[in-house]
Amino acid sequence: MTSTDGAPVPAFERFDQQTADGLVAAHGAETGGLVGFLGLRITAITPGRLVAEAAVRDELLTPFGNLHGGVLAAVTDHVLGCVLYPLIEQGAWAATTEFKVNYLAPVREGALRAEATVLSLTRRTAVVRVEVTNDGRLASAAQGTVLVVTPRS
Amino acid sequence: MTSTDGAPVPAFERFDQQTADGLVAAHGAETGGLVGFLGLRITAITPGRLVAEAAVRDELLTPFGNLHGGVLAAVTDHVLGCVLYPLIEQGAWAATTEFKVNYLAPVREGALRAEATVLSLTRRTAVVRVEVTNDGRLASAAQGTVLVVTPRS
Amino acid sequence: MTSTDGAPVPAFERFDQQTADGLVAAHGAETGGLVGFLGLRITAITPGRLVAEAAVRDELLTPFGNLHGGVLAAVTDHVLGCVLYPLIEQGAWAATTEFKVNYLAPVREGALRAEATVLSLTRRTAVVRVEVTNDGRLASAAQGTVLVVTPRS
Amino acid sequence: MTSTDGAPVPAFERFDQQTADGLVAAHGAETGGLVGFLGLRITAITPGRLVAEAAVRDELLTPFGNLHGGVLAAVTDHVLGCVLYPLIEQGAWAATTEFKVNYLAPVREGALRAEATVLSLTRRTAVVRVEVTNDGRLASAAQGTVLVVTPRS
Repeated sequence: MTSTDGAPVPAFERFDQQTADGLVAAHGAETGGLVGFLGLRITAITPGRLVAEAAVRDELLTPFGNLHGGVLAAVTDHVLGCVLYPLIEQGAWAATTEFKVNYLAPVREGALRAEATVLSLTRRTAVVRVEVTNDGRLASAAQGTVLVVTPRS
Repeated sequence: MTSTDGAPVPAFERFDQQTADGLVAAHGAETGGLVGFLGLRITAITPGRLVAEAAVRDELLTPFGNLHGGVLAAVTDHVLGCVLYPLIEQGAWAATTEFKVNYLAPVREGALRAEATVLSLTRRTAVVRVEVTNDGRLASAAQGTVLVVTPRS
Repeated sequence: MTSTDGAPVPAFERFDQQTADGLVAAHGAETGGLVGFLGLRITAITPGRLVAEAAVRDELLTPFGNLHGGVLAAVTDHVLGCVLYPLIEQGAWAATTEFKVNYLAPVREGALRAEATVLSLTRRTAVVRVEVTNDGRLASAAQGTVLVVTPRS
Repeated sequence: MTSTDGAPVPAFERFDQQTADGLVAAHGAETGGLVGFLGLRITAITPGRLVAEAAVRDELLTPFGNLHGGVLAAVTDHVLGCVLYPLIEQGAWAATTEFKVNYLAPVREGALRAEATVLSLTRRTAVVRVEVTNDGRLASAAQGTVLVVTPRS
């Protein structure tokens, strides 16, 4: 069971490096909310691809010692929308409308690496795949839809 | 947009009230981890149905003031497995293997009410539907599969 | 395992009876293509709900004597989009963008009854649930998204 | 928008070439049922990967001239289970329990190429990804679960 890293991504009309840098900066030590609870940091953003990482700390485990599935789901949801921002018009909104996740292997320790890959992007909608690996082993695979909401002029 | 509360549930061979009570007790003020972060309390368990509630507090919002989708996903994941425990053999494990969630309306404040309903249950697998409402409005609808892992004798 | 018939549907601004009648007429004995192969007839359309039926004939079974899962998937896909047409602006297009289906019980004979229920509808997008029963028993449950594409003026 | 062909697959304990050959032979000119209607031929099977192809003929289109989404769904369902047979114990059954499909681009003509890739396989369950391309363009992407049912001794 290995990650499918390296899958080709489509070409995109636009990639805003400043937006990408802003995303990285917004995931730091001071970040609160769900992202802070998850301990997510963005470690790479390229056109159509985003990688985020988090440590598997005790607070994320169930009483049985496994990573709570909800953590994988929340991480998946988060990167699914983030990967779009550098690709869409400034001021536009990437609204995740749905996703589906399969859990493939239990996680107990180490680090999570979530990789979001844009499979398709039109003016209105994008489809994104998210794989989370745990120390090199595929822990979950997901696929979701993001609605691109552009500001009215 | 209303909840589909009241959908019929199948009949089940077994419902362990003690397990149900234990689940309720395990979701309290002292609970840590993801469940504690979400602030989830179980407010009702009947055969094939479980209701949990949480307040929408600021820590669960994105910087844009909307509830983070990952919160809905994590809540969904959590109740999806919990609803099975009173129905399965003691010592058995309810392992959520996958789910799919549609986000239907943005959430900004108030309370979340997550209702899990078992659509089918065999010896090996169950299908569960989860709807989350926000002050009476349907916020997300999900459907997932749980593998019933029985201890080897 | 029973159908969740009777779930409440949201209120809709518009329901075009002529469009509904046209849909029924388009699913007849002469209908070709996939719909003809499936043998689907629409037996009821009300605002936000559509029921279609088909006989489980030998041609729809696998060599092992079970209904091919692809038949349930195709039926699901079909009614998922159809239920929207009477609700959306004339000339608009209901483009199914994704769905997820769980198969709950094997089907070997009798009739299929597919019921599509609109869970939410905005100007741009709808979420629809589809349940297929086989002689009263829930055979599959699905949930999907439809993009409402309005003609440009 | 390109296919993600070339994704790595896990290693498998077993690959039965005879079963693979039997699958190819069972998808021929004489094949009836849904597979015959779809016109599916298997063009390659390797451990954890299966490729099937079909021509986009008029009978598979909607009255609007687009390939019926149900065709993509049915093709997806079919290859999702088939890819497992050479990997599982002889006499075991690969029962697709659920899948989720995103439609990425409309299809009007040419050929479909469906590729199923096994992401994970345990004794009880497998997760499979299916991508359908239309003349090199990604038309749909799916992910599903297969239950491996072994005969009782």
